[in-house]
Amino acid sequence: MNQPIAIELAATKKTKPQADQLGFGKYYTDHMFIMDYEASKGWHSPRIVPYQPITLDPASKVFHYGQTVFEGLKAYRTDNGSILLFRPEENFKRLNRSNERLSIPHLDEEIALEALKQLITVDQDWIPDEDKTSLYVRPFIIANESSLGVAPSQNYMFMIILSPVGSYYAEGIHPVKIFVESEYVRAVKGGVGNAKTAGNYAAGLKAQEEAAAKGCTQVLWLDGVERKYVEEVGSMNVFFSINGTIVTPALNGSILDGITRKSIIELLKSWNIPVEERKLSIGELVEAYHNGTLEEAFGTGTAAVISPIGELHYLDEQLLLRGGETGPLSRKLYETLTGIQTGVIADPFGWTVELPSAQYTAGTK
Amino acid sequence: MNQPIAIELAATKKTKPQADQLGFGKYYTDHMFIMDYEASKGWHSPRIVPYQPITLDPASKVFHYGQTVFEGLKAYRTDNGSILLFRPEENFKRLNRSNERLSIPHLDEEIALEALKQLITVDQDWIPDEDKTSLYVRPFIIANESSLGVAPSQNYMFMIILSPVGSYYAEGIHPVKIFVESEYVRAVKGGVGNAKTAGNYAAGLKAQEEAAAKGCTQVLWLDGVERKYVEEVGSMNVFFSINGTIVTPALNGSILDGITRKSIIELLKSWNIPVEERKLSIGELVEAYHNGTLEEAFGTGTAAVISPIGELHYLDEQLLLRGGETGPLSRKLYETLTGIQTGVIADPFGWTVELPSAQYTAGTK
Ligand SMILES: Cc1ncc(COP(=O)(O)O)c(C=O)c1O
Ligand SMILES: Cc1ncc(COP(=O)(O)O)c(C=O)c1O
Repeated sequence: MNQPIAIELAATKKTKPQADQLGFGKYYTDHMFIMDYEASKGWHSPRIVPYQPITLDPASKVFHYGQTVFEGLKAYRTDNGSILLFRPEENFKRLNRSNERLSIPHLDEEIALEALKQLITVDQDWIPDEDKTSLYVRPFIIANESSLGVAPSQNYMFMIILSPVGSYYAEGIHPVKIFVESEYVRAVKGGVGNAKTAGNYAAGLKAQEEAAAKGCTQVLWLDGVERKYVEEVGSMNVFFSINGTIVTPALNGSILDGITRKSIIELLKSWNIPVEERKLSIGELVEAYHNGTLEEAFGTGTAAVISPIGELHYLDEQLLLRGGETGPLSRKLYETLTGIQTGVIADPFGWTVELPSAQYTAGTK
Repeated sequence: MNQPIAIELAATKKTKPQADQLGFGKYYTDHMFIMDYEASKGWHSPRIVPYQPITLDPASKVFHYGQTVFEGLKAYRTDNGSILLFRPEENFKRLNRSNERLSIPHLDEEIALEALKQLITVDQDWIPDEDKTSLYVRPFIIANESSLGVAPSQNYMFMIILSPVGSYYAEGIHPVKIFVESEYVRAVKGGVGNAKTAGNYAAGLKAQEEAAAKGCTQVLWLDGVERKYVEEVGSMNVFFSINGTIVTPALNGSILDGITRKSIIELLKSWNIPVEERKLSIGELVEAYHNGTLEEAFGTGTAAVISPIGELHYLDEQLLLRGGETGPLSRKLYETLTGIQTGVIADPFGWTVELPSAQYTAGTK
């Protein structure tokens, strides 16, 4: 890369939280990465600085028109002390696809990945090593031109922040109850559902609150046009085992192209388990449930990796799957994928990227 | 209201821009209003402070999950020097409807209106008095809890900023060219299209850029389900005069309940012109165009008030309306509505709210 990353280290370091207190996205490390964009200069001034508040004009476009994209991935500490990232190039590719949809300028993926590596190396003491913990990485871009005209911003900030995390769901690998949403819609073909942008998540909050009031952890979204095809679950893609075949909704423009989803499909294929990416209606699922061929269901995403679905609430019905227990396929996928991610299992796919744990630390820590 | 608004005046005042340089949303006044929300305290600490950047944690929910709502209205300087607001209670009612949809806590509408009045009074020198100028008022709420969990925020900021503006469109009252969008979708029933929230605008940027590249100022959105019913135009609702009847899309859950729209409907009814709020397909419009009954088309919104539509681009067709000139109804509505808004014409509807121009100024300016 042509612009070296300036590093300003924090004068004092924060106390690290206990592993069992981590939760998800509550604590942040000592540093963060920032790079600015101006129409006349392009992306410039990459820098690692102490984690700190940012200062924005109240008229910044991000506050008014939501021009923003983000990513989420994890860094794991292996048993031998090295650091593994899981398919980080995929995240930056997807960030650029989101950028394209949101009229945000293209980001050099190599620079972004290099920034990520350096930041994690600087804050590597923050990667927890207890079971099921990791360092969650949140790259994001916000539009910070101060102007109320509805038009793409002239200025942006690309940032990366890091957060040590435990399990995403309080339930951990325990099965979750999912509410099949028939009133609210998250996204529709032609919209921004396949981009990782803020507005998609805002649009889902209300449904999620109402689902929680009914005792469900997440919402299963149906398509916005016919209101019958399964889309995804909260921040996860979704898979169903029906009569020995694993079915997941095809990428149709309104769901996110999940990196865990993609990896699960590759893993299943490597095991010679049939996988279908296709349209899947809620009616088909209910029917499979009643005729006993709906064997298992699970969500996939960076935060929870695999989330077995123990129960689906649809209209007045409650479909209890495997008596509410984790199915064998969900468990095997969870163990294999987290095994690869944490270096416990060999990685035949070349998915993990190892960070040499001492590269940037000499003299800086 | 129980909590008085604290006022901290700016030590120095900015130079005001020339009226012909104003544009839209480029300059901000000397002060702004802020009020905070915490789950444990409710809305608190209402204050007017010098206009200044705000400081937020990079993990603030607004950056990641777009939990935000806003409003837009205008204050006008009348010929006798008084200040008129146009239906401001309607804006705060709508803000609360948006809040409800975005899981943001309810705001006391009276407190918000009082805050607005005091802020405008403090910055009243900023209300331009040249023809077609006004003071644009932007109330907005952002979620500022620093947490990456996808859930409604525990903390919020409600702010009001003010911007002296000229005409929204460079074209002014001149007719605009509109691109009928058949690829991208802005919103769908069950989504957040009827809330004034950031994500809706982010979702429209790409289509708007592509329309601009084809020489069009704005996009006419079609519904997300059947892709044939007219919804709205950029930040405007839309009206068509077809064979003597004025037709506008009914409020169907995916378009904004515009205050200008509502006022135009009331105005037309008071003139005994037939108005229909109903489903209107693009096919019906094209047919009316070809059989000569599509007489006029215009957009309505706070920013541009009335924007005559001179041309509609739909697929390969270009529908030229009234030879690209402003129609008589658009002109009459524009003149009547801006006349009422600026106090030039009597207001039989009780829409305007007059601000006593000296109420809060004694000793503060
Ligand atoms: C809406 C949505 N769907 C699916 C996913 C899963 O994607 P990934 O496996 O890349 O984390 C996410 C993100 O985590 C998401 O936000
Ligand atoms: C999407 C959208 N539609 C319509 C309008 C018109 O609403 P109003 O007349 O209240 O300004 C606006 C806002 O200005 C808008 O943002």
